[in-house]
Amino acid sequence: MKTHIDLVAAGGYSAAEWQAGFDACDAPIKVHEVADAPPCRYALAWGAQPALYAAQPGLRAVFSMGAGVEHLLSDPSLPADLPLIRLEDAGMAAQMAGYAVWGVLRHLRRFDESAAAARRGEDWGGWRSPPATGARVGVMGLGVMGQATLAALAPLGFVLRGWSRSPREIAGVECHAGTAALDRFLDGLDAVVCVLPHTRDTENLLNAARFARLAKGALVLNAGRGSLIVDTDLLAALDSGQLGAAVLDVFREEPLPAGHPYLTHPRVTATPHIAARTQIPLTARQVADKIARLEAGLSVSGLVERARGY
Amino acid sequence: MKTHIDLVAAGGYSAAEWQAGFDACDAPIKVHEVADAPPCRYALAWGAQPALYAAQPGLRAVFSMGAGVEHLLSDPSLPADLPLIRLEDAGMAAQMAGYAVWGVLRHLRRFDESAAAARRGEDWGGWRSPPATGARVGVMGLGVMGQATLAALAPLGFVLRGWSRSPREIAGVECHAGTAALDRFLDGLDAVVCVLPHTRDTENLLNAARFARLAKGALVLNAGRGSLIVDTDLLAALDSGQLGAAVLDVFREEPLPAGHPYLTHPRVTATPHIAARTQIPLTARQVADKIARLEAGLSVSGLVERARGY
Repeated sequence: MKTHIDLVAAGGYSAAEWQAGFDACDAPIKVHEVADAPPCRYALAWGAQPALYAAQPGLRAVFSMGAGVEHLLSDPSLPADLPLIRLEDAGMAAQMAGYAVWGVLRHLRRFDESAAAARRGEDWGGWRSPPATGARVGVMGLGVMGQATLAALAPLGFVLRGWSRSPREIAGVECHAGTAALDRFLDGLDAVVCVLPHTRDTENLLNAARFARLAKGALVLNAGRGSLIVDTDLLAALDSGQLGAAVLDVFREEPLPAGHPYLTHPRVTATPHIAARTQIPLTARQVADKIARLEAGLSVSGLVERARGY
Repeated sequence: MKTHIDLVAAGGYSAAEWQAGFDACDAPIKVHEVADAPPCRYALAWGAQPALYAAQPGLRAVFSMGAGVEHLLSDPSLPADLPLIRLEDAGMAAQMAGYAVWGVLRHLRRFDESAAAARRGEDWGGWRSPPATGARVGVMGLGVMGQATLAALAPLGFVLRGWSRSPREIAGVECHAGTAALDRFLDGLDAVVCVLPHTRDTENLLNAARFARLAKGALVLNAGRGSLIVDTDLLAALDSGQLGAAVLDVFREEPLPAGHPYLTHPRVTATPHIAARTQIPLTARQVADKIARLEAGLSVSGLVERARGY
């Protein structure tokens, strides 16, 4: 009889959904719900899970169900010495790139405005839709998500910049690193795409002073975390015309509370956290591969440095 | 004194606009309007121009102001032996790729529907927006425009196919060639992007039988020429649900006449021929380079084969 490894799923998708994913890649993993799990070596979790940690003192590692881990780190019941492993790509990077490219093109090319004009019988000749080749587009966050986003923007004729905490080199991209270089990165950008994680350093990073560095009428697209943006500053910059549009997929509170200005502001497109959804088949395969490495005593990538926050 | 070459501009942009473009790239070209032009060696034309050809019997070549040339070929006053040269890329391929990527992502990821749902306080969790990685996307026309479009689709996680008149090989793309292979190319595609030129062979190419090969609910995006599509078949396929959406930038009659169903159909997004606009600076540079080669007795690319139609 084949031996199996017990894993407990907590939050997000159900044990049955994960089991189907592990079975599809033929991984020797048995998935349990918290309430009826035997002692497990691994957990796959989303959000605060005090009942999980109380019931499972023998966990060797907990896997985040997403790329972000702040939902786990902010849980006071998380044991201090439990290794956390975040999801890497697993089909999310291509999704993120698609969301960013859609938002940037829609804004810079004014496609929706041209379509609306055509319906009114106007604008044949297309003056509303600039070619936008040569527009300056910047990406904040140069990990797997940010690099995939830049790779998807590159064929579209934009001039690209990137910003990250620590220095990076990416062909065809003017890269900037560190807080001191942030203004230089932002100067005159026509669109900024943010895929940074939530950390102490990124909280409130995008404020009125930052927005003022961008080209007038620029786009701010945030698919990182809602806490990166000072919401009142963003709304003020949209109202003044300094920003032309915001495309937002993440918020300080999700779902956005009814009546929130992001839901009604004419220059804001708010989407319900759909830029990069967890895909069970690819995620299960990645988690299974990492568990196999851990069981063999090998190192794995994606191990969270708690002091850094990701 | 520097000698110059006389060129006459007819249709589209004015002589003054073209002159600025040639001056910016320091080309020794003097641009004239048809009405007051001296004998010219070259013309830059858009549309039927009987007055041009009557007044300029000494033309060595006529350049199209766009990638398409059917607007010149359909002119009975066009001299039979006058070389025609079409525009190649000149900043249009990246624009075309952007239009296609925008239209495909918007449809496959259902971004607009998710945003509308969020406004109503629905769909947090994002079930309306599928990841769409693995969706099958095909591009018809594998010249400069089609290849740029495929290069822009590639980073987004789609499974790609291409179709062209003559065989092509493109890395990462399942290529099909010729009419006999068209159905195999179309079978089960979730989105088809058409950037073919208007020729005898492409007219009415996309009809009810072709639409029936696509996956149910597929997208048809046409940024080639309006004549490629049998409009009544497209509308019927949208009404039946066989097609989920059409994104159309080109039409048999432009501007679309008031009251045309494409302007009001809920599943049609019609844009006013803005997918790839002629960019004067890049076009002027390309035309100037080709004129320099022709003056030196060298061959140029983009020479139209009239029998083929492009």
